[in-house]
Amino acid sequence: MSYGDSVKQIKGMNMRYFNLTLLAIFFSTTVTGQELSKTDLKKMVREYRKTHEHELFTELVDWLTIPNVADDQPNIRKCAAWLKEAMEKRGIKTQILETGGSPVVYGELKVPGAARTVMYYAHYDGQPVDPTKWMDMEPFSPTLRPAKLKAGSIEPKPIPIPKKGEKIDEDWRLYGRSASDDKSPITALLAAMDAVKAGGIEYGANLKFIYEGEEEAGSPFLKSFAEKNRHLFDTEVLYVCDGPMYYSNQPTLKFGARGITTIDITVYGPNVNVHSGHYGNWAPNPGIKLARLLTSMKHENGNVKIKDFYNTVTPLSKREKSAVKAIPPYDDEIRELYGFAKPEGRGESLMERINLPSLNIRGLESAWVGPQARTVVPAKATAAIDIRLVKGNDPDDMIGKVIDHVKRQGFHVVSEDPDNETRMKHVDIAKIVKRGGYPASRTSMDLEISRLTAEALTGFHNEPIVMVPTSGGSVPLYIFTQILNVPTISVPIVNHDNNQHQPNENIRIGHYWQGIETLAALLVYVK
Amino acid sequence: MSYGDSVKQIKGMNMRYFNLTLLAIFFSTTVTGQELSKTDLKKMVREYRKTHEHELFTELVDWLTIPNVADDQPNIRKCAAWLKEAMEKRGIKTQILETGGSPVVYGELKVPGAARTVMYYAHYDGQPVDPTKWMDMEPFSPTLRPAKLKAGSIEPKPIPIPKKGEKIDEDWRLYGRSASDDKSPITALLAAMDAVKAGGIEYGANLKFIYEGEEEAGSPFLKSFAEKNRHLFDTEVLYVCDGPMYYSNQPTLKFGARGITTIDITVYGPNVNVHSGHYGNWAPNPGIKLARLLTSMKHENGNVKIKDFYNTVTPLSKREKSAVKAIPPYDDEIRELYGFAKPEGRGESLMERINLPSLNIRGLESAWVGPQARTVVPAKATAAIDIRLVKGNDPDDMIGKVIDHVKRQGFHVVSEDPDNETRMKHVDIAKIVKRGGYPASRTSMDLEISRLTAEALTGFHNEPIVMVPTSGGSVPLYIFTQILNVPTISVPIVNHDNNQHQPNENIRIGHYWQGIETLAALLVYVK
Repeated sequence: MSYGDSVKQIKGMNMRYFNLTLLAIFFSTTVTGQELSKTDLKKMVREYRKTHEHELFTELVDWLTIPNVADDQPNIRKCAAWLKEAMEKRGIKTQILETGGSPVVYGELKVPGAARTVMYYAHYDGQPVDPTKWMDMEPFSPTLRPAKLKAGSIEPKPIPIPKKGEKIDEDWRLYGRSASDDKSPITALLAAMDAVKAGGIEYGANLKFIYEGEEEAGSPFLKSFAEKNRHLFDTEVLYVCDGPMYYSNQPTLKFGARGITTIDITVYGPNVNVHSGHYGNWAPNPGIKLARLLTSMKHENGNVKIKDFYNTVTPLSKREKSAVKAIPPYDDEIRELYGFAKPEGRGESLMERINLPSLNIRGLESAWVGPQARTVVPAKATAAIDIRLVKGNDPDDMIGKVIDHVKRQGFHVVSEDPDNETRMKHVDIAKIVKRGGYPASRTSMDLEISRLTAEALTGFHNEPIVMVPTSGGSVPLYIFTQILNVPTISVPIVNHDNNQHQPNENIRIGHYWQGIETLAALLVYVK
Repeated sequence: MSYGDSVKQIKGMNMRYFNLTLLAIFFSTTVTGQELSKTDLKKMVREYRKTHEHELFTELVDWLTIPNVADDQPNIRKCAAWLKEAMEKRGIKTQILETGGSPVVYGELKVPGAARTVMYYAHYDGQPVDPTKWMDMEPFSPTLRPAKLKAGSIEPKPIPIPKKGEKIDEDWRLYGRSASDDKSPITALLAAMDAVKAGGIEYGANLKFIYEGEEEAGSPFLKSFAEKNRHLFDTEVLYVCDGPMYYSNQPTLKFGARGITTIDITVYGPNVNVHSGHYGNWAPNPGIKLARLLTSMKHENGNVKIKDFYNTVTPLSKREKSAVKAIPPYDDEIRELYGFAKPEGRGESLMERINLPSLNIRGLESAWVGPQARTVVPAKATAAIDIRLVKGNDPDDMIGKVIDHVKRQGFHVVSEDPDNETRMKHVDIAKIVKRGGYPASRTSMDLEISRLTAEALTGFHNEPIVMVPTSGGSVPLYIFTQILNVPTISVPIVNHDNNQHQPNENIRIGHYWQGIETLAALLVYVK
C-alpha cells in the first residue's frame, strides 16, 4: 500500500484510530499481525466497516439479485463471473474452472515472505427455492426487514435498502436465497480483505480460494475436480466458510462434520393395493411389518439396537472431550424452540449426541392418510432413513450392518421390487435402496494449524471460542481431508436462525459485520 | 299379460320352448312359480334373453353413457330420470324422491294376491373416475372387448357394439363406470321382469325398489331419508343388488357386511421438520414412536393385541359356521393373484377371518421418501387405520379401545395438534382423529325369508349356493337392519374381477345373462 493510498483510507477514519494507523504507517509500509494487538485490529476493521458499510452492504445485495440455483446454469455462470470480478478487485488472481457442472471459482494471492498457505472454501450456489413459501418477498429480490420475521407472519414489513450515509442497524435482517448460505461469508471475506489492506496490514499467509457452484445439489463434481486438480490444493488448511455459528453467537470453529448415507426400505403386502373390506385381516399389511422392523432397530431411548452399529466410532480425544464439555449447552432453549419434552438418548447433551452416528427415519409412506385415505390394504410401505456418520464409520459398512439386521429379522432382502415368484417364496421381503453418501471428517485439534487458528480468534471478540469437534450437518469434507489430505476447519459467521435451506433465508446484519472482523483476524494472525 | 301380448312374445322364442310357454298360457293367464320347475323357468328366461339380447344389452349401454358421479348433479339427475322411465316401462309406479343430495328412485309394483313384499336396493351412482387411468377408452363411453384387458395393456382391442341380430359372446366384457357397480344389476332386474312377464309368469311377491344416487359418496343422506320415510320400507326383506359374486362364480347370497370405522393417529417429533444433521439422534423421531405404537397393537400373526378388541363379537351361529365351512376356499388362488406367501392369522381361511374385526394400517405418512426425501427429523408421523367391524362391534366402543390402548402405551391423547405448552409437558403425544363409521350387519340364516331366498336359488343353476354370513366390504346395511328393522340379503350377480371402484370397470356378458336368470328366480320363487 502506498502512502497516498493509506492517507486516502485514513481520511475515512475518525481521529480515535488515526494515531494508531499513523503509527503503523510510520513503522513500515505494511503492518504485520505481530505488531498489532487484537483489540487494535478489531477497532481498525470495525472503523473501516462503519465508514464503508453502505458499499459493503450493497455489494452483497447486488450479488443476491443473481439467482444461484445450480440447475439454472446461465445465472450460475453470472454468479461465478460476478465473483471473479469481485475477487480480482481485491488483487486475487482468479480463474473460472470447469468441472462438468457448475464452474469452480478459484483464486490465489501470494504474500511475499509468507511461510504458510491457507485456502478458503465456500459455495456460491444456493438451495432450490419455492417462491410461494417466501413471506411477501421474492428469493432473489433481497429484502430488508427491521427484525426477524415473526413465525408464519409477513411482519415486520420490509424497509427500504438504506441510501449511502444512512444508518444500518445491527438487528436488521437481509432476506434472500444465500443471504447466509454462502454468499455472505464469501463477500464478508472480501470485505475483511479490504479492511485489512486499508489498514495497511499484510495477510499472514498466502491465500487461496475455492468457491463451488453445486454444493446444494450434492457436489456431484467436487470429488472428480479435486482428484484432477490436486495441485491447486497445496495448502495447510482449508477454511470452510459455511454453516451457522453456535447458538450462543460465540466465535465458533468446527473441526469436522458428520458424514451421511441414506437408504429406503420398502416392505410388501399384496402386489397391488387391495380392498381392506374384502381382504383386511387376511392380506398381509406392509405398514405393520415395516413398523415391527423399524421398532427392532432402536431402543426406546433412541439408541440404535443394530448389532455393532457403534463399534467403528473413533472415540473423541482428550482435547475434543474437553472442548465438548466447554460448549455452553443450549439444549433446553432448542427443546423449547422446537417444542419437545425429552430428547433421544440417556441424558447426553446435543453436542455429545452429534459425536455418535444416527439412524433417523426421515420419511414414511404407505398409500394415503387423512382425507385422501382409501380403504385399502396397501401394496407396500416405505421408510426413508438417513444415517449420519461420525469419524471411523464407513458408509457401506454401516449400510451393511442395517442390511444384516433386516435379514436377522427374517426378511428376504432384495434391491428391486420382487416378482410374484419371489413373493410366493418369502413371507417377508424388504427392498433396500442405497442412495449414496460419504464419510465424516474430523480434523484433530492437536494439529499446529488447529492451534494457530484457535489462537488467532482467542481473545479477539472478548468471548471464549466454541470449539466443535463434529458439526451435525454433513459436508463432504472427506474429499479434502481423505482424498487431498488437507485438514479442514470451519469458520462459520452467520446467525443460527438464518433459515438455511428453507424459505425466508436471511442474515442478521450484526453477524455480517462481526463476521468481517472474525475473518480479518484469521487473515492477519494465521501465519 | 294379455293373450295377444303373450303371443307376440312367443313369436320371438324358438320351438323348443314354444310348447312350454303355450302350456303355461293354456293353464292360466299368469303362471305361478309353483307350477313351473326351476329348469323350465331358467330355459324360458334364457330363451327370452337370447331372443332379446340386443335390446337388453343396448339398454345397459345406453344408461352407461350418462355420467353418474354423485358430485355431477345434472348428470345424476339424468340417470335418475332415465331409470324412472325404464321402471315405468315395466309397470312400476315410480317416484323421484329428494334426499338433500342425489335423489332416490323409488318404485312399487303390487302383485294381486301376493302374501309378501320384498324390496330391491342398489345404487345408480358410480365411483369418481380418473379418465387418464382407463386403458384406451373413456369411462362413460361404454366399450366392448372380446375378453378381459390384459394387466397394464390396451389389449384386447375394442370391438364394435353388435348390431341387432349379431351374436354377443358370453366372454366379452363391457367396460364403463358402473358397468358392474351397480347399473347392470339394476337393468338385469328390469330384464328379468321382462322375461318373467313375457313368459306369462307372475311375480311371487309385491315388489318395491329403492335406488340410491350417492352410495359411492358414502350415502350421506340415506340414514335421514330412511328415518323420514319409514313407511316406504314396509318389506320383509331388502335384496341388495350390489357387489360381486363369490370367486367360484356359484350363485351367491350374502347375509351381511362388515361395518367400518376409521381413525388417523398422528405422533409428534419437533414442532417443525428440523435438520437431521443438526438434530438427528437427539430430536425425538416421530416415525419410530409411531412404529413402536403400531407394533404394540398387533401380534406378529396379525391378530390384534388391543385389550378386549374381540370381546364384543357376536359368534357365528351353527348354521353360519356350516355355511362358512361349505364355501369352497379360493385362498390359494387369491394369494397367487395378489402375490403373497402367507396371510395374517393362525391358519384360518379368508372367509373365517372376515367374521372377525380387522385393524388395518391403510396408510402411513411422515415427511417424504424416495427421491423427494429430505434430510429432516420429521415434525410428525401419521397412520391411517381402518377398523372393519363385525356383528356385535360398536364403532365408538372399538375406537375407545384403541384410544385406551394408546394411552396405556404412555401417550397423551389429543384431538387437535398440540401447542408448545402441551408439547413441553408430555414426552409422547398422539392425536387421534375419528372419521365416522357404522356398525356391521348380519341377517340370520335362520329367518323364514332367508330360508325362502336360499330355496329360490337352490338347484336353479345346478350348483350349490355360496352362503356368506358376512361379506368383507362395508355397506351401511345397519340403516335397514337396525334403524328400519328390515333384514337384508345381498344377491350379487357380477363377476368378481369387475374392477369395481377402479379404472376399467367392466362386466362379463355371461355374468350379466346369468344374473338376469338368477333375479328371475327370486322374482318368481320368493312368495
